[in-house]
Amino acid sequence: MAKKLWGGRFKKSIDKDFEEFSKSIQYDYKLAKYDIYHSKIHALALKNSGILTAAESKKIITVLDGILGNIESGDFKFNSTSEDIHTEIQNFLEKKVGKLALKLHTLRSRNDQVVFDAKWFCKFEAVQIICLLNELEKNLQTISRKHKDKAFIGYTHTQRAQVVRFDDYINAYYFMFKRDFQRVSKFFDGLNVYIGAGALAGSSLTKDAYDQAASYLLDKMKELSKIVKPVENSLDNVSDRDFIVEFLSILSIIQMHLSRFSEDMILYSTQEFNYIDLPEEFCTGSSLMPHKKNPDFLELVRGYTGQVNGNLIAVLTTMKGLPLTYNRDMQLDKEPLFSSVEILKNELKIMAKFVKGIKIKEEIIAKALEDECLYATELAEFLVHENVAFKEAHDIVGKLIRYSQDKKVKIREISDKQLRGFHKALNQKEIKKIMTPQYAIKSKKSINRKVLKINA
Amino acid sequence: MAKKLWGGRFKKSIDKDFEEFSKSIQYDYKLAKYDIYHSKIHALALKNSGILTAAESKKIITVLDGILGNIESGDFKFNSTSEDIHTEIQNFLEKKVGKLALKLHTLRSRNDQVVFDAKWFCKFEAVQIICLLNELEKNLQTISRKHKDKAFIGYTHTQRAQVVRFDDYINAYYFMFKRDFQRVSKFFDGLNVYIGAGALAGSSLTKDAYDQAASYLLDKMKELSKIVKPVENSLDNVSDRDFIVEFLSILSIIQMHLSRFSEDMILYSTQEFNYIDLPEEFCTGSSLMPHKKNPDFLELVRGYTGQVNGNLIAVLTTMKGLPLTYNRDMQLDKEPLFSSVEILKNELKIMAKFVKGIKIKEEIIAKALEDECLYATELAEFLVHENVAFKEAHDIVGKLIRYSQDKKVKIREISDKQLRGFHKALNQKEIKKIMTPQYAIKSKKSINRKVLKINA
Amino acid sequence: MAKKLWGGRFKKSIDKDFEEFSKSIQYDYKLAKYDIYHSKIHALALKNSGILTAAESKKIITVLDGILGNIESGDFKFNSTSEDIHTEIQNFLEKKVGKLALKLHTLRSRNDQVVFDAKWFCKFEAVQIICLLNELEKNLQTISRKHKDKAFIGYTHTQRAQVVRFDDYINAYYFMFKRDFQRVSKFFDGLNVYIGAGALAGSSLTKDAYDQAASYLLDKMKELSKIVKPVENSLDNVSDRDFIVEFLSILSIIQMHLSRFSEDMILYSTQEFNYIDLPEEFCTGSSLMPHKKNPDFLELVRGYTGQVNGNLIAVLTTMKGLPLTYNRDMQLDKEPLFSSVEILKNELKIMAKFVKGIKIKEEIIAKALEDECLYATELAEFLVHENVAFKEAHDIVGKLIRYSQDKKVKIREISDKQLRGFHKALNQKEIKKIMTPQYAIKSKKSINRKVLKINA
Amino acid sequence: MAKKLWGGRFKKSIDKDFEEFSKSIQYDYKLAKYDIYHSKIHALALKNSGILTAAESKKIITVLDGILGNIESGDFKFNSTSEDIHTEIQNFLEKKVGKLALKLHTLRSRNDQVVFDAKWFCKFEAVQIICLLNELEKNLQTISRKHKDKAFIGYTHTQRAQVVRFDDYINAYYFMFKRDFQRVSKFFDGLNVYIGAGALAGSSLTKDAYDQAASYLLDKMKELSKIVKPVENSLDNVSDRDFIVEFLSILSIIQMHLSRFSEDMILYSTQEFNYIDLPEEFCTGSSLMPHKKNPDFLELVRGYTGQVNGNLIAVLTTMKGLPLTYNRDMQLDKEPLFSSVEILKNELKIMAKFVKGIKIKEEIIAKALEDECLYATELAEFLVHENVAFKEAHDIVGKLIRYSQDKKVKIREISDKQLRGFHKALNQKEIKKIMTPQYAIKSKKSINRKVLKINA
Repeated sequence: MAKKLWGGRFKKSIDKDFEEFSKSIQYDYKLAKYDIYHSKIHALALKNSGILTAAESKKIITVLDGILGNIESGDFKFNSTSEDIHTEIQNFLEKKVGKLALKLHTLRSRNDQVVFDAKWFCKFEAVQIICLLNELEKNLQTISRKHKDKAFIGYTHTQRAQVVRFDDYINAYYFMFKRDFQRVSKFFDGLNVYIGAGALAGSSLTKDAYDQAASYLLDKMKELSKIVKPVENSLDNVSDRDFIVEFLSILSIIQMHLSRFSEDMILYSTQEFNYIDLPEEFCTGSSLMPHKKNPDFLELVRGYTGQVNGNLIAVLTTMKGLPLTYNRDMQLDKEPLFSSVEILKNELKIMAKFVKGIKIKEEIIAKALEDECLYATELAEFLVHENVAFKEAHDIVGKLIRYSQDKKVKIREISDKQLRGFHKALNQKEIKKIMTPQYAIKSKKSINRKVLKINA
Repeated sequence: MAKKLWGGRFKKSIDKDFEEFSKSIQYDYKLAKYDIYHSKIHALALKNSGILTAAESKKIITVLDGILGNIESGDFKFNSTSEDIHTEIQNFLEKKVGKLALKLHTLRSRNDQVVFDAKWFCKFEAVQIICLLNELEKNLQTISRKHKDKAFIGYTHTQRAQVVRFDDYINAYYFMFKRDFQRVSKFFDGLNVYIGAGALAGSSLTKDAYDQAASYLLDKMKELSKIVKPVENSLDNVSDRDFIVEFLSILSIIQMHLSRFSEDMILYSTQEFNYIDLPEEFCTGSSLMPHKKNPDFLELVRGYTGQVNGNLIAVLTTMKGLPLTYNRDMQLDKEPLFSSVEILKNELKIMAKFVKGIKIKEEIIAKALEDECLYATELAEFLVHENVAFKEAHDIVGKLIRYSQDKKVKIREISDKQLRGFHKALNQKEIKKIMTPQYAIKSKKSINRKVLKINA
Repeated sequence: MAKKLWGGRFKKSIDKDFEEFSKSIQYDYKLAKYDIYHSKIHALALKNSGILTAAESKKIITVLDGILGNIESGDFKFNSTSEDIHTEIQNFLEKKVGKLALKLHTLRSRNDQVVFDAKWFCKFEAVQIICLLNELEKNLQTISRKHKDKAFIGYTHTQRAQVVRFDDYINAYYFMFKRDFQRVSKFFDGLNVYIGAGALAGSSLTKDAYDQAASYLLDKMKELSKIVKPVENSLDNVSDRDFIVEFLSILSIIQMHLSRFSEDMILYSTQEFNYIDLPEEFCTGSSLMPHKKNPDFLELVRGYTGQVNGNLIAVLTTMKGLPLTYNRDMQLDKEPLFSSVEILKNELKIMAKFVKGIKIKEEIIAKALEDECLYATELAEFLVHENVAFKEAHDIVGKLIRYSQDKKVKIREISDKQLRGFHKALNQKEIKKIMTPQYAIKSKKSINRKVLKINA
Repeated sequence: MAKKLWGGRFKKSIDKDFEEFSKSIQYDYKLAKYDIYHSKIHALALKNSGILTAAESKKIITVLDGILGNIESGDFKFNSTSEDIHTEIQNFLEKKVGKLALKLHTLRSRNDQVVFDAKWFCKFEAVQIICLLNELEKNLQTISRKHKDKAFIGYTHTQRAQVVRFDDYINAYYFMFKRDFQRVSKFFDGLNVYIGAGALAGSSLTKDAYDQAASYLLDKMKELSKIVKPVENSLDNVSDRDFIVEFLSILSIIQMHLSRFSEDMILYSTQEFNYIDLPEEFCTGSSLMPHKKNPDFLELVRGYTGQVNGNLIAVLTTMKGLPLTYNRDMQLDKEPLFSSVEILKNELKIMAKFVKGIKIKEEIIAKALEDECLYATELAEFLVHENVAFKEAHDIVGKLIRYSQDKKVKIREISDKQLRGFHKALNQKEIKKIMTPQYAIKSKKSINRKVLKINA
């Protein structure tokens, strides 16, 4: 069992089952990179305060940079018996520089480190998700432009409603992911990473010592300077998990959009709807039924809504009613966070490829667009322009449809005489003009599509 | 049973149980005000498009303004047999202006109205919550200024940790609510209210007709112009419930903060902690136990975390996997939204008064500050400045505490000789200086409190 | 504001906003009936203990019975300014019998009453739900018997999979609701209602006094005797909310089943699937689109999954980490409980009627059953009996389907010569025999349908 | 990449990212044991049906038994590139017996296997949890017997309420875990494992072939015969995840109890309450603060409520609105299930040890029992026996307490004369008798402790 960062006052050694139960290295190793950033800033701040010499500080930072390199190249081997990532890096440092390593943990606390690390993780992953959303948006735009002005069947209540433009349909999702993009961006912008809270009470290093250390290192990393600031309220800083809940709730909204898109694609690729051919490389077959081409990717995306929402509720529940400041319960914020980030990154990455492979079955769609019900609203609108109050027009068309269904005759084929029985302005010629996708689409004038042009 | 806005094609009348089950008037009456705004803009847009005459439009708007007045004065009697608020207002209008009322529902859909109404509701309530947060922040600031520089016991793991400043403790909550304030503000700023989506496909009224109508009316209402815009994607607009999930998740974060503050206050007002005297007017007694003064308000606040998180998960679950565009499931977004808004407004309003009534028991706190453990970290820091590596200093102090507990002797009272056995730099005089609240507080230099001064 | 059951030690009067916030009469009035049962037993127990005279006890019980009658007839007017239902009934009693009423609240606590009331509520509502499930099961059985042996399209992944029996399809839901029936029944059986816990510590009335009182009254009510027992652990009794979580989780499972049935019915009633005609009296139209017949009932049922799951998580969250024994947080268990019970009762009641109105479109189904893919598995099974390893048979049929799709030729119409190219045992005659619903159904022999016969 | 169980009709190979995304071997390897049971029964059923010869069946079963041995000894190396555990075992078998292995997958489907495996997993783990609950109950009983008849401070609202028996306090938790024990037991009893559903439609093997195979093997395993039955409704069987939701909700209730016990122990081990000394081997220190002994185990238990509730909501959400029968979404039921089972097993195991290490600080408790407020109810009860209506008695004692607090005088020390001012029956002698733990405990007669004796 690896060394711990505490223990002086304890007589009994830790229970083995509890030790295993309480360890976090198996997941918080993902924070290694950010923990080293904390250590580097802290080493410099200790130097700025005269607790480390320039040589000591340099030695520590050099070794830390070595670890960082190994982590980034995947060569760092985490010791699974360490208590957590903070202990792991401290222990590794000790192996390299001996007793000097002990000085690094002067005047700092894991309470401060873990929130620093987790925030930087969130900032880093937010950028990844922004890029993935951007790629998905781009690919949706490509489809929508390709099918510009084509007609499609618009649904409400999963029932055929009205003719819509196919690009509007695809862009509905584009708009959703764009809002997501903005939400993640705002989250990124608003997230401040602090240092210097100690366990809860601050430390005897000055805020300037931290500030200069952070500025110096961030400059060298070519990071946006001032991403790290001296703590403004140390109790709040070690207690705060808002940023995790906020990130998880944003991811839940993205997930909601992905689940809806998946549902649409599942529906549209059934043998019954049949509007769309799914890219085979994202489908699977059956071990029993040789003919199956199942939309497994879409189903998994839809299904992951459970886990992503579960992760959000997990952290909210864990945080309920915790007294200030840090409590160990908070350790359990990380698995839900890592899980949702991982799921969303995978989904977005694959979905961006997936949408490129979708094939639109234009003949089938054209056939469906012949359904006369799709033009009922246009027919009613026509009557409005003949000075019929809409509610009456609505009634007239309702009756016309019922007549058509009861008599099993197409509205387009009802005689002028009979049509006049419903309303004097109705006749076959007019109806045949109105009941076309082109007419339906052209008659819509309320939509401001300028926004899209600006983005193009 | 009140008249409905649909029905032409239906032969059978609606099942009575289903009708009752599907009604929403019992809660969506809360949207009445905003539904009238929609109707007024729509009436003007119809006039701008030549479907209503100027006189007709004026007549409708006058009656709508009358209803609005009655709603605001509380005089409007909602008919509980109406299907929903949109139908209710339409029916009321019909009673007043007869057949003309039927013309108002031309080229619009409840799908468009309900999202318009709900967004405006969110914008309005966001402002209320911003004001309530502001009041609470102000009152927290008042306490923190009053007790400026006083020492308090800082906890981690509900165990005494270190001495902290009392104003820092209170300001930890101030910082939380300030972040909440910013989150609600950003939500308000980012929320656009659209009009003209029809059922899903837009309408034959032009975007300019809507734009001019909205601008004209918003000017008259002295609202920030451009709060209402012509729809940019009509399918997305009637499908979108992001704003509800976003608002609910912000409210869940506020609730998390309130639950933590409540927990602290519950703890601090126990007979055992006893740091704080709760204002009697927010406590209740027991029907059986005559001596009880129970922190019921705080318990209810803590307990409401369940409902507030439940409301968030309810909407996320309802929205999972819904195909585009509108589905009736979405009607069920409103009760959770209204519930969380109501709970949070009540909690914030009462909490702002509650915090003003809190009394700090300074003697008890002073007594607790004598606990020597609270100064262990300062002692270790002292050794660091005597050139002891922190981890060693940590061990030395750990052993000193164990010795003190085993021998039942105060550290302050251990002889110089014995102290030197732990470390040569230790002596009674030094220890007595270090182990004071004043020293502990002064020794913390890492905190940047400038932000607070700027806000003051 | 109505009188309270506590207050002796309080100097300040309660804050009005807090009073309003903390009231529960607006929902716990639903417990009135059960609260009177508690009062009656308690009155008798007080008599058995010599604290009330026989005459006093009788007088109190007579008045309580009068209230009970009024509640059941709907004539009781709840005073909305009362703190809760316990206070309300106490106050009402006082109006009728004056100071004698004060004696009733001797040695009892609302902590004991509220858990007694809530448990009895659960027992009562469990019976209602059992009956509603029974009705739904019966109606599903009616459909399944009516369509016995008819073939239907079985789906996996929302893709056509294999031919199944229509009665098996309907009975899949029958089996789900039967499990629900058993779950609710077991819950009912395992739920014990206790009395005599006081606030938390028990009371000075003897367990025999309670036991005799309960037995006497339950006998008179012709209730299953021993539904109420003297408390076995008073601290647990006032702390326990297991039964609410258990009931809510059972309701969530029923809700899951209802949401799946609704999804199936929504799909099958689309213009694209079109297997089923929904009963018009459970559908609604559109205010804009005259042709719409929307499956609103099914959508609302599906959508309510959010609220029902939210209610479960609400109570679980509220109960997290509450110290023993009673805490005011627990008051918030009731609204989620009442909400889920109400939703499920409505859904089950309407769904039982709904399923009776479903019409199966046999011609459309017959047409869909011609899809050759549905018989792929049967074809592979045939090859297995010709000594082909299944995995090879699976491959052969997979290639046959691909060939059929690429060449746009039906498998039934491929020549014997070409068929032999895939496998020597294949020929048109055999294939035409296999590719029929009758063959597909008859070939399945693994299912034990005896259970259903036993229930019939 | 390992071989798959499907693919004949596919032209393109699977996308690598999607393949990785959709794999389940990294967690469903936990089902290996149960999957082999399925395979063994299936091999026998194929033999019973003449599809495998006796020799073939024996060969397959022998190899499967070999794998089983390796799994149980931990020697089986899972190939992480396999799609899932079913494929993995099939592939392994193929390596050992060549083409014969292909015959095993005849007429069965992973849809049938996975539900078989998961149910058996639940049955197995339910037994583990039953044993762990039993151990915890036993250890709680040991404490409660050891401290039989000792007095303790009973709390409501985290405020001192009344004196209670310490064993009653501990037994409150005993009762909770006993209910949990019964819930898990009933779950175990009611869970049936079926075989023979195929993908959804059953198979051409007869129910007798399955029945005999299962009976034969279960006999050999000395399992309770008839744990496995031929399927009764094949569509329901592959669609059903009730058992997972049911198990997860039972685990959530256990978790609720554990979180409450943890909260109590955290409170009671603060420096302020100080009733209890926690076993050091389950606590941790601080890397910064040398004196800390933090209740980390208890905090982690309390915190895990988030994840356990999140897992429940995850599966409920995933299952919402899934059409029949199997959908790939359902694959995501396993991680939440495994996670909650793992957490609960760890918590229960450690908690059973933890409670044995708790030390009761009797002196501190004795001191707290001097608090006069604890006897307020007994004082009121005394007045009741002097013929004062309880509500009046409640008022009198309330005033007495306020007097005592205002004058800072103990009630025990108020003069007889002054006491009579509150009520004529009050005097110092009586009060000194009543205000003792012994009196308080003895005066409670309503509790039926027989149940505990029966269990002893």
